[in-house]
Amino acid sequence: MAAYENIYSGNRPDSNNWRSRIYDIIFEADTPAGKYFDILLIISILLSVLAVMLDSVKSFRIEHGELLYNIEWFFTILFTIEYSLRLICVKSKLRYSTSLFGIVDLLAIVPTYLSLFLPGSQFLLVIRILRVLRIFRILKLVKYLNEAELLIDALKASSRKITVFLFTVLTLVVILGSLMYLIEGEENGFTSIPISIHWAIVTLTTVGYGDIVPKTPLGIGLASVVMIMGYSIIAVPTGIVTAEMSLASLDARDKERNRIICDNCRNNNNDADALFCKHCGTKL
Amino acid sequence: MAAYENIYSGNRPDSNNWRSRIYDIIFEADTPAGKYFDILLIISILLSVLAVMLDSVKSFRIEHGELLYNIEWFFTILFTIEYSLRLICVKSKLRYSTSLFGIVDLLAIVPTYLSLFLPGSQFLLVIRILRVLRIFRILKLVKYLNEAELLIDALKASSRKITVFLFTVLTLVVILGSLMYLIEGEENGFTSIPISIHWAIVTLTTVGYGDIVPKTPLGIGLASVVMIMGYSIIAVPTGIVTAEMSLASLDARDKERNRIICDNCRNNNNDADALFCKHCGTKL
Amino acid sequence: MAAYENIYSGNRPDSNNWRSRIYDIIFEADTPAGKYFDILLIISILLSVLAVMLDSVKSFRIEHGELLYNIEWFFTILFTIEYSLRLICVKSKLRYSTSLFGIVDLLAIVPTYLSLFLPGSQFLLVIRILRVLRIFRILKLVKYLNEAELLIDALKASSRKITVFLFTVLTLVVILGSLMYLIEGEENGFTSIPISIHWAIVTLTTVGYGDIVPKTPLGIGLASVVMIMGYSIIAVPTGIVTAEMSLASLDARDKERNRIICDNCRNNNNDADALFCKHCGTKL
Amino acid sequence: MAAYENIYSGNRPDSNNWRSRIYDIIFEADTPAGKYFDILLIISILLSVLAVMLDSVKSFRIEHGELLYNIEWFFTILFTIEYSLRLICVKSKLRYSTSLFGIVDLLAIVPTYLSLFLPGSQFLLVIRILRVLRIFRILKLVKYLNEAELLIDALKASSRKITVFLFTVLTLVVILGSLMYLIEGEENGFTSIPISIHWAIVTLTTVGYGDIVPKTPLGIGLASVVMIMGYSIIAVPTGIVTAEMSLASLDARDKERNRIICDNCRNNNNDADALFCKHCGTKL
Repeated sequence: MAAYENIYSGNRPDSNNWRSRIYDIIFEADTPAGKYFDILLIISILLSVLAVMLDSVKSFRIEHGELLYNIEWFFTILFTIEYSLRLICVKSKLRYSTSLFGIVDLLAIVPTYLSLFLPGSQFLLVIRILRVLRIFRILKLVKYLNEAELLIDALKASSRKITVFLFTVLTLVVILGSLMYLIEGEENGFTSIPISIHWAIVTLTTVGYGDIVPKTPLGIGLASVVMIMGYSIIAVPTGIVTAEMSLASLDARDKERNRIICDNCRNNNNDADALFCKHCGTKL
Repeated sequence: MAAYENIYSGNRPDSNNWRSRIYDIIFEADTPAGKYFDILLIISILLSVLAVMLDSVKSFRIEHGELLYNIEWFFTILFTIEYSLRLICVKSKLRYSTSLFGIVDLLAIVPTYLSLFLPGSQFLLVIRILRVLRIFRILKLVKYLNEAELLIDALKASSRKITVFLFTVLTLVVILGSLMYLIEGEENGFTSIPISIHWAIVTLTTVGYGDIVPKTPLGIGLASVVMIMGYSIIAVPTGIVTAEMSLASLDARDKERNRIICDNCRNNNNDADALFCKHCGTKL
Repeated sequence: MAAYENIYSGNRPDSNNWRSRIYDIIFEADTPAGKYFDILLIISILLSVLAVMLDSVKSFRIEHGELLYNIEWFFTILFTIEYSLRLICVKSKLRYSTSLFGIVDLLAIVPTYLSLFLPGSQFLLVIRILRVLRIFRILKLVKYLNEAELLIDALKASSRKITVFLFTVLTLVVILGSLMYLIEGEENGFTSIPISIHWAIVTLTTVGYGDIVPKTPLGIGLASVVMIMGYSIIAVPTGIVTAEMSLASLDARDKERNRIICDNCRNNNNDADALFCKHCGTKL
Repeated sequence: MAAYENIYSGNRPDSNNWRSRIYDIIFEADTPAGKYFDILLIISILLSVLAVMLDSVKSFRIEHGELLYNIEWFFTILFTIEYSLRLICVKSKLRYSTSLFGIVDLLAIVPTYLSLFLPGSQFLLVIRILRVLRIFRILKLVKYLNEAELLIDALKASSRKITVFLFTVLTLVVILGSLMYLIEGEENGFTSIPISIHWAIVTLTTVGYGDIVPKTPLGIGLASVVMIMGYSIIAVPTGIVTAEMSLASLDARDKERNRIICDNCRNNNNDADALFCKHCGTKL
């Protein structure tokens, strides 16, 4: 999310001509024009994604196929114009077009052109939904981005613990799946080791489709063990993330709480129970 | 829940006539009559909801249809009288009838009358179950309401983080669902993008109905990724809410442990059981 | 668990005759004889429960029916003798026979006698598994009981919050289930409101049997909302219990950490940063 | 994981001949040769496991059976040579061959030889996946091992609480399963008590296969209770592990924030960035 800000800041053209005015409308949400542009854009994106979704519903496609086809091309041309404008008005074309949002903006129009040669690829247009992330710019932007950053920070801080956890889970399902393949065999639906590993994942994560279920007593027993295992070890990722978030919350609260400011050196980091400033030694 | 208190306080008629006496019985639970009224009311509500439920069971309806029809009308007339009394005895009719409880009280009788013109709408009567929320008034009211408020506060405090999380999940299922539609296709049950998104939600939330399951190797692989993802990211909402609740619990405990402030040195960090200030030794 | 200790302490016969010797063997696990008795008892319980389980497996019952019948009666007579001995050697017969363990001990033998008149009731013998709770007496008893008590304390402390949560969930599933009954109707498997409420519980708790699934677009949409709801609000009970357990853990650690002991009044509750004893004011 | 280090340290041959040079390559990852060896080894392991998996897919086996057979023998001979080299170059053969990694290394080659006499046992080769745990030696080893140790410590610290929890869950499913057997009976799919206990585990852990579902009203009601129970008590293992991890995180943070002790007043609560003692004002 921080990257999102970096992309834009500093890419505004220096000159104060029509390019910078377009930039303010398309890239910023501070001016009324910029805000209305963003709202219209998001409505267009949602409508176009809705059209793609409806296009995939057979009964709807048969009835309104031509209409949907036209809507698709309408939005694609609209977004193509928008993408061109974005390219034109930024200072560094390369920097925008290689940024995360630049790539998403491009991917949001390519599938329609591609569908001329490769029918079916128009369904890739749902990637447009990623463009809706711009919505955070319209809503009280900063606060939400801060929360998102707090979340991402907590996840980053626990990324090594989560790696170890995922690695253990993957090793576990490979071994458990293979065991079930040997125990149950092809006649009970465990047709291969990859399918059996898939079953182990379905069971350990407590998803439980039920399309493949153990039939032999030994298999049923092992499946029960896998379930109780999955039920218990879900506590591990939860514990990891929660511990990290609790720490972050505690820190945020500590920061909020009033610190005593020293009159002499303006150090504002004295504890509430301090008698002397810890930086200059003045009596508080 | 706080709104619940506000609705009632101050809506008691000022005069001390029969209206205020009815008010005390219907709206309050402090007097014996008020308490008995509330208990009778909740029993009536539960019985009427049970009757609506049984009415929906075909075999039961065929056998006892007329009885259930009579019970329904009996309770509806009873609740209509009660609603009228409530309207009559409050000071401000508008304020009561537009309050949350006023609306629920009205919705709890309308469906029966509506069913005269629109058969089937009587099943909407289950909304009466919301009226049972009054039960907290009979039980040691305040303590439960406080706990509920603590819960709601913790959820409110983390609402922005939860919004970011839900937004991410929704974006994820749209993209994952569309990918599965392209990979599996209509012949494997993924008949449209909305259906595939539904599958993605079913899988990510670890519900796992199993009515639609992937068949192709690529689809099975992606499904496994979605499951492990869902198994891991459930840690995020849990972490958010838990961190917030831990903070609230810590604060509540800190508040409980009253700290004594020393008159001599203004040290406010003395324990509740301290007899002498731990900083200057003055008797507290 | 605390009740468990109370039942036994003080129920030993005062006289030092054969009754008190039997008491030490049957009720206590401190003497070698008492320990061996408990281990033998637990093995007998597990074997008898296993026999009951196997008796319910048709193919096994047909082949070894008579053997299982004999085993059942063997253990029942054994446990009847044991129960009689327990009754004989305690000081207060009433106190033992009305205690939790006394009732379980009786329930563990009654079903076999009952099965003479009411075939099938012998399967109630699995209640014998509760007798295995005595196992905590053999393992490093106190530590496990302490942990169990910590768990129970944390659950008790959060019982009001959990009540509010369960109440909300129950109200939610009643309304959601009824809505689905109206939306999907009997032709899609939602044959009655109770069945639809059952579906709502199956979906909200992320169990997801898949025997009843929505078919209409509106139903599928509502089901998706219910799933994401269930996926998110599982955070609430988790948050409640975790916050309570974290507090308990913090308190336990704080207690463990060295407190400064006052040389004058032997008060051992002074904080690490205290300069004067908070009870007697002596300089530390 | 700590054991992993102990196995190796001190098992290096003292003499500085070819044996110790091989040891450095095979057992250590500090030298370039050692690192390349480990990377090649892990690629070989992953390829061989992949071959075993593909061998279990019928269509693939029919087409490429001979190729897979050759690959299997190629890797088995490779790993046999590697195992022999490991045995040769360690100081204590017994210590290596009885260590966890030594056993895994042996188990990773035995099944192929075994499959000559016992067809099908070659699928046990997936145990090779455990050898990939060596990957932590190549990645920034120590940090990941530390995180793993933190995780294991937290789990160990809460092992008694988890034992009590698992014991309660097992007792619960035995009783709930038996009750469902009596309520639903063989005609509704609950063919025996073990199968019914399996159903109880499937339901309580929210896996929900849906191959066995209750049909009678009483059974449906009890199933709903089991689900809400399972949905709520998942909070218990989560709470246990999270509380333990939060404590560990707090401790780690406290340790990080070195406190400075004042030479004058022995106040040990000065922050790391303090220049003067906050109690007596002495320069630190």
